[in-house]
Formats: sequence, structure tokens, C-alpha cells
Amino acid sequence: MSRPHPATSFRERLTKVAAEVEATLDRLLSVQPGPGEITRPERLVQSMRYATLGGGKRLRPFLVVEAARLFGAEGANVLRAAAAIEMVHCYSLVHDDLPGMDDDDLRRGRPTVHKAFDEATAILAGDGLLTYAFDVIAAEATHRDAGVRAKLAVGPARAAGFGGMAGGQALDLAAEQATAPLAAAEVERLQAMKTGALLCYAVEAGAIVGGADPAARATLVRYGRALGAAFQIADDILDAEGDEATLGKRAGKDAGRNKATLVDALGLEDAKRVRDRLAGEAEAALATASFPASTATLIEAARFVAARTS
Amino acid sequence: MSRPHPATSFRERLTKVAAEVEATLDRLLSVQPGPGEITRPERLVQSMRYATLGGGKRLRPFLVVEAARLFGAEGANVLRAAAAIEMVHCYSLVHDDLPGMDDDDLRRGRPTVHKAFDEATAILAGDGLLTYAFDVIAAEATHRDAGVRAKLAVGPARAAGFGGMAGGQALDLAAEQATAPLAAAEVERLQAMKTGALLCYAVEAGAIVGGADPAARATLVRYGRALGAAFQIADDILDAEGDEATLGKRAGKDAGRNKATLVDALGLEDAKRVRDRLAGEAEAALATASFPASTATLIEAARFVAARTS
Repeated sequence: MSRPHPATSFRERLTKVAAEVEATLDRLLSVQPGPGEITRPERLVQSMRYATLGGGKRLRPFLVVEAARLFGAEGANVLRAAAAIEMVHCYSLVHDDLPGMDDDDLRRGRPTVHKAFDEATAILAGDGLLTYAFDVIAAEATHRDAGVRAKLAVGPARAAGFGGMAGGQALDLAAEQATAPLAAAEVERLQAMKTGALLCYAVEAGAIVGGADPAARATLVRYGRALGAAFQIADDILDAEGDEATLGKRAGKDAGRNKATLVDALGLEDAKRVRDRLAGEAEAALATASFPASTATLIEAARFVAARTS
Repeated sequence: MSRPHPATSFRERLTKVAAEVEATLDRLLSVQPGPGEITRPERLVQSMRYATLGGGKRLRPFLVVEAARLFGAEGANVLRAAAAIEMVHCYSLVHDDLPGMDDDDLRRGRPTVHKAFDEATAILAGDGLLTYAFDVIAAEATHRDAGVRAKLAVGPARAAGFGGMAGGQALDLAAEQATAPLAAAEVERLQAMKTGALLCYAVEAGAIVGGADPAARATLVRYGRALGAAFQIADDILDAEGDEATLGKRAGKDAGRNKATLVDALGLEDAKRVRDRLAGEAEAALATASFPASTATLIEAARFVAARTS
């Protein structure tokens, strides 16, 4: 039997995991109240489903699932952790799009939540998704070991909080108001917080769920940090080069809005070099430790992030 | 030595715990990044401090502390859990006040966060407080037992999520748009979600931190549920009767805005009767179990909630 080419196998895995994550989110975001809840208001649930279902590459949950697979962990409990991280990501998109923030009308080619519903519902949908993520990730169904569950709760809080994603968003808004463009190092820090921290945590969450030892976990964090940085530079490059049809959102909008990007700070060619170097660093990090299972899919993930066209 | 009158002792406890919670929040909301964080942007930290410090009776953290004291638990770790619950409460106030929600300019007699800072910062301050609450409550410093920490993370997620506080807020906004006023039972459910769930969880969190057995915990949940309901009716009554100077916010604003209140649904006199009955139920619930320490302070808390004038 011939082995499939790694890139083919990667695409198949990405598609398969996205479908599993979609089904998990669909089940979790039910209108039926969960334990300890009173009722889930219909319209709010619909807005949270709208914000979450039917979209995206599901890169963050994919990283959770593939990192956990390195240690032989898979199945419904891993998918719960993966779905929780995706909810944190989706909440951030809903709030970023709000009129008081980036004021975007379009996301993944569809009206944003505050356009499809209303502003108050969008605020609450984001709040609801963020809050529910902690319920899902720390509940007993996610892992039999309470120590793992407590760790899983703390991780996204740090990655998404004022010292991570929310803080990065605050720095990004401040950069828009600034008179001088940010230096490359400042943009890197901003992006490490705004995008990198949660992507990196997705990898780490997989390691935690899989029961990785500290050394393997640290290796995966190094991989995740490089991958997260590569992802955001690739995003900046796409925005500078891309067209609206491919992105499903207004292209060139970063430049129009004085967003801090590494393309501005470094120029397009240097930005591409940094992107490729970071993807290489992610791959190289994996080679510094041995894992129970093959790292081929995670290696392909780093290549995919750097080469993506949407 | 003569024992102080319970009500005096209660006031002293309330003041003492409020000061301890203030100091804990002040320390936690530092500009120094915590473990796993990159940096805490100055302006965002300031907005989160503004939203949290120097205000309020600290009733929720007081309930955490006093419920934990029933089981002999006190000190820095209990105060961390208490501070986390207060952060969840403060986040909800910041988001409720937003232009896209209740659009309030004044809170506790001061400009609301989006007035004192700006709308984007207020959205992120709320997001940051909610997220950080889970970091604080699930971190190792809060309890040595990981099972307790995992439970502590799940609890506020359920109390504050789409099946609790955020869902109650969604129902409240829907009621404003409705053509017919809500029936008393609908208002009760809405309030149980919007206000009651987190108040009740504060009591339960104290029981969890204190290591209560399931029976004692269930008793305290019954107490917390009645107290939470009494609190919200007292709030409605205050709004109908109160004046702006006492409340620090615009009085009568609920009626002006078609807010669902039990005063509307029941009339003022019946609402007062229900409030007093619920405060009595809270007190009676405590008498159904025996606890290692005196329940006098929690009994006074229920009376205080019903009798409060601000």
C-alpha cells in the first residue's frame, strides 16, 4: 500500500477535523439548556451559532486535535477542548467587527453578527461564546483528570486576556491613532498578542489534553509561537496583495485604516522572508524532540500557514 | 465581653471584606504581566481598574467569603475566588452600559467606562475582565486541589453565560422591544438569569472553596437563589421609589425604558411582600442544615439585601 503524499494527507485531515469540530460546535450550541443553566434564549443562541458555525478553516481546533494526536489522544473530549478554543476565536471576531471597534460589515463573505442581528445581540453573542468556552473546556466531559481541566481553563484565559489577545487588540487600536508607524519589533509584539497567543495556545492545549511531559509541551509551544507569528505575517501579506473575492473581506483595508502590519514595517519582500523563516522555525522546533506519533501533519500545517492564499 | 449586635457585626464584616477585596483586585489588576502573558497595555489596564476599583458594596465577593467562612476557609486564596466573581460582575456592568446596550453615561455616580475612556476600550475592558476572572479563579494560587479549581472555573461560566447572566440580559433587551409587558413568572425567570445566577453562584463558590459536602452546598444554593431573587426585586423597588442621589444613577429609568420589572408585573405593594418573603426563605434555608460555623452573617446579608436603600 502506498502512503499518501504528506500534503494530500494534511488536506484530508484538515477537512475531516473541520467537519468534526463543526458537528461538536453544533451539538454544544444547542438551544437546550445545559446543567446549571436556566434557559438559552433562542435569538441569542442563533446569533452565537451564526458567529460560529459554517465557516473558517478551523485552524485553531485543528492544531489542538493534531497536537493531542501526537500523544495518542483523540475523540469527543479532545474535540470539546478544540471547540472551546474555536469559540474564543469566534467571540474575538464578533467583538472586533463591532461598530465601536473595526466597524466591519462583512466576515467570511457574510454580514457580520451586528449586521445580521443587531449590535446588542452581537455584544452578548461574543460575551456568551467567550464565557461558554470556559464551561466547555473545564467540564468533566473534557478530561477525567481535574488537574488537566484546571490547566485547560487557565490557558485560554491567559492567551485571550489583557496580557494576550484582548491586549493585542487594544495595542492595535492605539496604533491606528498613533502619529508615527510602529517599529517592526512593536508590530511583532502586538501580533504575538493579538493572533499568536491563541494559535500557540491551541497547540499547547493539545499537548495538555494529550498528557505531554514538560519538555514535549515546551517544544510544542516553540512550534506554536513560530507558527502563530508566520500566520499573522501571511495575513498581512495577503491583505496587501489579496483581492476581495479570495478573502471574503475588504482587501487592502489595513493600509486604508493605518493598521500596524509587518508589511508596512519591513516591506513586502522582507515580510515574505520573515514569514518563510518562521514557518521553517516551526518545523525545526518539532525536530528537537521525539514524539510518540509522527509530526508530519503539524509540519504540513506550518507550511500551509505560510503558503495560504485565503 | 458582650457580643456585638448581629447587624453591627454584619456591617463591620461587609466593610472589612470590601477593603480586602479592593486590595486583592488592586494587586491582581496590576500593569505587570502575569505568567504566560506578554504585556498588559497601560490604557487597557487603567480602564479595567476604573471599572473595578473604588466602588460598590462588593456583595458578591462578600457572599463568597462568608460562605467559605462557614467551613473555616479564609485568606488570600478565598479572596482570589471572590475577586474573580467581582470581575465577572464588573465586566457585565461595563458591557451593559455600552451605547449598543443600555447606553448609560453614569455608573456609581461616575462616568461609565466608555465615557471616561472610549467605546472600543470599554468593550475590551469588559472582555478583559471576564477573561481574567477565569485565569484568577482556576489558577493554582486559588486552591491546592485541582478538582476545586476546575469546578470553580465551570461555575461562573454557567452562571454568567448564555444560560445565565448574558442570556438574562438578552431577554431583558427583548422585553424592551415587546409590545406586551412580561408576566410575573417571565420577569422572575429573566431576573433569575440576569442577576440571580451570579449572586447565587457567589454563595456556591464559597461552599466549593470551603469544601462543603453536597448537602451543605445544596442548602447554600437554595439560600443564594432566594437571596438573588430578593436582591433584584429590591432593586426594582428602589428604582421605582428611589431618587437619583441615593442610587448614583438615573432613577425611574426602568419605567422610562420599558424594562421588565416585578414592580410593573405585581404592583409595588405585592413586590415588597415577595421581596420580604424571599429574604425569609433565604434565612429559613440556612436553618435546614448545620454548619461548622455560625450563619448569623449570612442571615444578616439576606435582611440587608431586602432592606437596602441603595
